Amino acid sequence: MPKPNPIPLDANLERNTVHAAWLDLCDVRIEDDRRWPWIVLVPQREGVFEIHDLSAEDQATLASETAWVASALKEITSCLKINTGALGNVTRQMHIHVIARNEGDSGWPGPVWGFGTRERYEAADMERLKIILAEKLQAY
Amino acid sequence: MPKPNPIPLDANLERNTVHAAWLDLCDVRIEDDRRWPWIVLVPQREGVFEIHDLSAEDQATLASETAWVASALKEITSCLKINTGALGNVTRQMHIHVIARNEGDSGWPGPVWGFGTRERYEAADMERLKIILAEKLQAY
Repeated sequence: MPKPNPIPLDANLERNTVHAAWLDLCDVRIEDDRRWPWIVLVPQREGVFEIHDLSAEDQATLASETAWVASALKEITSCLKINTGALGNVTRQMHIHVIARNEGDSGWPGPVWGFGTRERYEAADMERLKIILAEKLQAY
Repeated sequence: MPKPNPIPLDANLERNTVHAAWLDLCDVRIEDDRRWPWIVLVPQREGVFEIHDLSAEDQATLASETAWVASALKEITSCLKINTGALGNVTRQMHIHVIARNEGDSGWPGPVWGFGTRERYEAADMERLKIILAEKLQAY
Protein backbone atom coordinates (compact mmCIF):
# COMPACT_ATOMS: atom_id res chain seq x y z
CA MET A 1 0.00 0.00 0.00
CA PRO A 2 1.67 3.30 -1.01
CA LYS A 3 1.53 5.99 1.63
CA PRO A 4 0.21 9.12 -0.12
CA ASN A 5 2.20 11.73 1.73
CA PRO A 6 5.19 10.51 3.73
CA ILE A 7 7.08 12.99 5.90
CA PRO A 8 10.62 13.98 4.87
CA LEU A 9 13.14 11.27 5.76
CA ASP A 10 16.46 12.00 7.48
CA ALA A 11 19.43 11.60 5.12
CA ASN A 12 21.07 8.85 7.25
CA LEU A 13 17.84 6.84 7.32
CA GLU A 14 17.45 7.37 3.56
CA ARG A 15 20.98 6.10 2.92
CA ASN A 16 21.01 3.15 5.31
CA THR A 17 17.47 1.76 5.30
CA VAL A 18 15.04 0.51 2.63
CA HIS A 19 11.27 0.88 2.73
CA ALA A 20 9.36 -2.37 3.20
CA ALA A 21 5.80 -1.55 4.36
CA TRP A 22 3.45 1.11 5.73
CA LEU A 23 1.58 0.70 8.99
CA ASP A 24 -0.99 3.18 10.32
CA LEU A 25 1.65 5.31 12.06
CA CYS A 26 5.01 4.07 10.84
CA ASP A 27 7.09 3.64 7.75
CA VAL A 28 8.62 0.16 8.20
CA ARG A 29 12.16 0.03 6.82
CA ILE A 30 14.94 -2.57 6.73
CA GLU A 31 18.41 -1.57 7.92
CA ASP A 32 20.82 -2.33 5.09
CA ASP A 33 23.18 -4.42 7.20
CA ARG A 34 23.06 -8.15 6.73
CA ARG A 35 24.89 -8.90 9.99
CA TRP A 36 21.51 -8.82 11.77
CA PRO A 37 17.89 -8.86 10.56
CA TRP A 38 17.06 -5.31 11.62
CA ILE A 39 13.89 -3.25 11.14
CA VAL A 40 13.52 0.50 11.66
CA LEU A 41 10.12 2.09 12.29
CA VAL A 42 9.74 5.77 11.45
CA PRO A 43 6.58 7.34 12.93
CA GLN A 44 5.02 9.69 10.37
CA ARG A 45 5.04 12.70 12.65
CA GLU A 46 7.26 15.70 12.02
CA GLY A 47 9.27 17.45 14.73
CA VAL A 48 9.14 14.48 17.12
CA PHE A 49 12.39 13.57 18.88
CA GLU A 50 11.35 11.70 22.02
CA ILE A 51 8.60 9.15 22.69
CA HIS A 52 6.99 11.56 25.14
CA ASP A 53 6.70 14.14 22.32
CA LEU A 54 4.10 11.84 20.71
CA SER A 55 0.41 12.10 21.67
CA ALA A 56 -0.91 9.42 24.02
CA GLU A 57 -2.77 7.84 21.11
CA ASP A 58 0.35 7.77 18.94
CA GLN A 59 2.36 6.28 21.84
CA ALA A 60 -0.13 3.40 22.06
CA THR A 61 -0.13 2.89 18.28
CA LEU A 62 3.66 2.94 18.20
CA ALA A 63 3.77 0.34 20.99
CA SER A 64 1.43 -2.02 19.12
CA GLU A 65 3.22 -1.50 15.78
CA THR A 66 6.58 -2.14 17.45
CA ALA A 67 5.19 -5.34 18.98
CA TRP A 68 3.77 -6.44 15.59
CA VAL A 69 7.07 -5.92 13.88
CA ALA A 70 8.94 -7.65 16.71
CA SER A 71 6.61 -10.62 16.52
CA ALA A 72 6.89 -10.79 12.71
CA LEU A 73 10.68 -10.57 12.84
CA LYS A 74 10.86 -13.29 15.48
CA GLU A 75 8.66 -15.58 13.36
CA ILE A 76 10.63 -14.90 10.18
CA THR A 77 14.06 -15.40 11.75
CA SER A 78 13.36 -17.78 14.67
CA CYS A 79 15.81 -15.60 16.60
CA LEU A 80 16.63 -16.07 20.26
CA LYS A 81 15.88 -12.49 21.35
CA ILE A 82 14.46 -9.30 19.96
CA ASN A 83 16.27 -6.08 20.83
CA THR A 84 14.33 -2.83 20.57
CA GLY A 85 15.63 0.66 21.08
CA ALA A 86 15.08 4.34 20.37
CA LEU A 87 18.37 6.22 20.69
CA GLY A 88 18.61 9.15 18.28
CA ASN A 89 21.99 10.36 19.50
CA VAL A 90 23.22 10.69 15.91
CA THR A 91 20.02 10.64 13.81
CA ARG A 92 17.48 12.89 15.49
CA GLN A 93 14.39 12.03 13.46
CA MET A 94 12.47 9.65 15.70
CA HIS A 95 12.98 6.00 14.75
CA ILE A 96 12.65 2.72 16.60
CA HIS A 97 14.97 -0.22 16.07
CA VAL A 98 13.74 -3.82 16.17
CA ILE A 99 16.59 -6.29 15.78
CA ALA A 100 16.77 -10.09 15.69
CA ARG A 101 19.60 -11.39 17.86
CA ASN A 102 21.16 -14.80 18.35
CA GLU A 103 23.95 -16.17 20.51
CA GLY A 104 27.22 -15.72 18.65
CA ASP A 105 26.03 -13.06 16.21
CA SER A 106 28.20 -9.97 15.60
CA GLY A 107 28.75 -8.25 18.93
CA TRP A 108 26.64 -10.68 20.97
CA PRO A 109 25.53 -10.11 23.74
CA GLY A 110 26.27 -6.39 23.39
CA PRO A 111 24.15 -3.89 21.50
CA VAL A 112 24.46 -3.59 17.72
CA TRP A 113 24.56 0.20 17.43
CA GLY A 114 27.99 1.42 16.43
CA PHE A 115 29.40 -2.10 16.36
CA GLY A 116 31.97 -2.88 13.66
CA THR A 117 31.40 -2.10 9.99
CA ARG A 118 28.13 -2.24 8.07
CA GLU A 119 27.79 -5.09 5.56
CA ARG A 120 25.19 -4.23 2.94
CA TYR A 121 22.86 -6.85 1.46
CA GLU A 122 23.07 -8.20 -2.05
CA ALA A 123 20.13 -6.61 -3.90
CA ALA A 124 18.34 -9.94 -4.37
CA ASP A 125 18.64 -10.81 -0.66
CA MET A 126 17.24 -7.42 0.38
CA GLU A 127 14.36 -7.81 -2.09
CA ARG A 128 13.55 -11.24 -0.66
CA LEU A 129 13.55 -9.95 2.93
CA LYS A 130 11.35 -6.99 1.93
CA ILE A 131 8.76 -9.31 0.39
CA ILE A 132 8.75 -11.73 3.33
CA LEU A 133 8.41 -8.90 5.85
CA ALA A 134 5.69 -7.06 3.91
CA GLU A 135 3.69 -10.26 3.54
CA LYS A 136 4.02 -11.12 7.23
CA LEU A 137 2.93 -7.61 8.29
CA GLN A 138 -0.15 -7.79 6.02
CA ALA A 139 -1.38 -10.67 8.14
CA TYR A 140 -1.81 -8.39 11.17
CA MET B 1 3.23 3.42 47.77
CA PRO B 2 4.38 -0.13 48.59
CA LYS B 3 3.42 -2.73 45.99
CA PRO B 4 1.82 -5.59 47.94
CA ASN B 5 3.02 -8.50 45.86
CA PRO B 6 5.93 -7.84 43.48
CA ILE B 7 7.04 -10.60 41.13
CA PRO B 8 10.43 -12.22 41.73
CA LEU B 9 13.29 -10.02 40.51
CA ASP B 10 16.17 -11.33 38.41
CA ALA B 11 19.45 -11.51 40.37
CA ASN B 12 21.28 -9.09 38.04
CA LEU B 13 18.50 -6.51 38.34
CA GLU B 14 18.50 -7.02 42.12
CA ARG B 15 22.24 -6.43 42.32
CA ASN B 16 22.53 -3.50 39.90
CA THR B 17 19.33 -1.48 40.34
CA VAL B 18 17.53 0.16 43.25
CA HIS B 19 13.76 0.49 43.64
CA ALA B 20 12.44 4.05 43.36
CA ALA B 21 8.67 3.92 42.65
CA TRP B 22 5.73 1.76 41.61
CA LEU B 23 3.58 2.55 38.60
CA ASP B 24 0.45 0.59 37.60
CA LEU B 25 2.42 -1.96 35.59
CA CYS B 26 6.08 -1.38 36.38
CA ASP B 27 8.57 -1.39 39.19
CA VAL B 28 10.64 1.76 38.52
CA ARG B 29 14.28 1.23 39.44
CA ILE B 30 17.50 3.25 39.18
CA GLU B 31 20.55 1.65 37.59
CA ASP B 32 23.37 1.92 40.09
CA ASP B 33 25.81 3.55 37.68
CA ARG B 34 26.45 7.24 38.12
CA ARG B 35 27.97 7.67 34.65
CA TRP B 36 24.44 8.24 33.30
CA PRO B 37 21.07 8.93 34.94
CA TRP B 38 19.47 5.61 34.03
CA ILE B 39 16.05 4.17 34.91
CA VAL B 40 14.93 0.57 34.49
CA LEU B 41 11.24 -0.36 34.30
CA VAL B 42 10.31 -3.92 35.23
CA PRO B 43 6.75 -4.87 34.16
CA GLN B 44 5.11 -6.91 36.91
CA ARG B 45 4.29 -9.86 34.68
CA GLU B 46 5.97 -13.22 35.07
CA GLY B 47 7.29 -15.27 32.14
CA VAL B 48 7.42 -12.31 29.76
CA PHE B 49 10.54 -12.01 27.60
CA GLU B 50 9.48 -9.93 24.60
CA ILE B 51 7.20 -6.90 24.24
CA HIS B 52 4.88 -8.94 22.03
CA ASP B 53 4.46 -11.46 24.89
CA LEU B 54 2.55 -8.73 26.78
CA SER B 55 -1.21 -8.30 26.29
CA ALA B 56 -2.29 -5.39 24.08
CA GLU B 57 -3.45 -3.53 27.19
CA ASP B 58 -0.13 -4.07 28.94
CA GLN B 59 1.75 -2.93 25.82
CA ALA B 60 -0.18 0.35 25.86
CA THR B 61 0.38 0.81 29.60
CA LEU B 62 4.08 0.06 29.22
CA ALA B 63 4.32 2.63 26.42
CA SER B 64 2.70 5.35 28.53
CA GLU B 65 4.76 4.48 31.64
CA THR B 66 7.95 4.51 29.56
CA ALA B 67 6.99 7.92 28.18
CA TRP B 68 6.22 9.23 31.70
CA VAL B 69 9.57 8.08 33.00
CA ALA B 70 11.36 9.48 29.94
CA SER B 71 9.65 12.82 30.38
CA ALA B 72 10.44 12.90 34.12
CA LEU B 73 14.07 11.98 33.54
CA LYS B 74 14.44 14.63 30.85
CA GLU B 75 12.96 17.26 33.21
CA ILE B 76 15.16 16.20 36.12
CA THR B 77 18.39 16.07 34.15
CA SER B 78 17.79 18.58 31.31
CA CYS B 79 19.55 16.01 29.13
CA LEU B 80 19.98 16.36 25.38
CA LYS B 81 18.47 13.00 24.44
CA ILE B 82 16.66 10.10 26.03
CA ASN B 83 17.72 6.61 24.99
CA THR B 84 15.26 3.78 25.51
CA GLY B 85 15.82 0.12 24.90
CA ALA B 86 14.70 -3.41 25.70
CA LEU B 87 17.51 -5.86 25.00
CA GLY B 88 17.49 -8.82 27.38
CA ASN B 89 20.42 -10.62 25.78
CA VAL B 90 21.99 -11.21 29.19
CA THR B 91 19.14 -10.59 31.67
CA ARG B 92 16.05 -12.30 30.32
CA GLN B 93 13.44 -10.91 32.74
CA MET B 94 11.74 -8.19 30.71
CA HIS B 95 13.01 -4.73 31.54
CA ILE B 96 13.07 -1.40 29.72
CA HIS B 97 15.95 1.04 29.93
CA VAL B 98 15.40 4.81 29.94
CA ILE B 99 18.70 6.70 29.95
CA ALA B 100 19.59 10.41 29.98
CA ARG B 101 22.32 11.18 27.45
CA ASN B 102 24.41 14.26 26.75
CA GLU B 103 27.10 15.10 24.25
CA GLY B 104 30.45 14.04 25.69
CA ASP B 105 29.09 11.61 28.28
CA SER B 106 30.71 8.16 28.66
CA GLY B 107 30.50 6.41 25.31
CA TRP B 108 28.67 9.22 23.51
CA PRO B 109 27.15 8.89 20.91
CA GLY B 110 27.23 5.09 21.20
CA PRO B 111 24.92 3.00 23.37
CA VAL B 112 25.63 2.61 27.09
CA TRP B 113 25.05 -1.12 27.40
CA GLY B 114 28.28 -2.99 27.99
CA PHE B 115 30.32 0.21 27.85
CA GLY B 116 33.30 0.49 30.20
CA THR B 117 33.06 -0.22 33.92
CA ARG B 118 30.14 0.50 36.22
CA GLU B 119 30.64 3.34 38.73
CA ARG B 120 28.27 2.94 41.67
CA TYR B 121 26.67 5.92 43.38
CA GLU B 122 27.55 7.19 46.82
CA ALA B 123 24.62 6.15 49.04
CA ALA B 124 23.54 9.74 49.68
CA ASP B 125 23.53 10.58 45.97
CA MET B 126 21.42 7.53 45.14
CA GLU B 127 19.01 8.41 47.94
CA ARG B 128 18.66 11.95 46.59
CA LEU B 129 17.98 10.72 43.04
CA LYS B 130 15.41 8.21 44.33
CA ILE B 131 13.51 10.95 46.14
CA ILE B 132 13.58 13.37 43.20
CA LEU B 133 12.41 10.69 40.77
CA ALA B 134 9.65 9.35 43.04
CA GLU B 135 8.33 12.88 43.62
CA LYS B 136 8.38 13.69 39.92
CA LEU B 137 6.53 10.47 39.03
CA GLN B 138 3.84 11.18 41.65
CA ALA B 139 2.92 14.29 39.64
CA TYR B 140 1.69 12.18 36.71
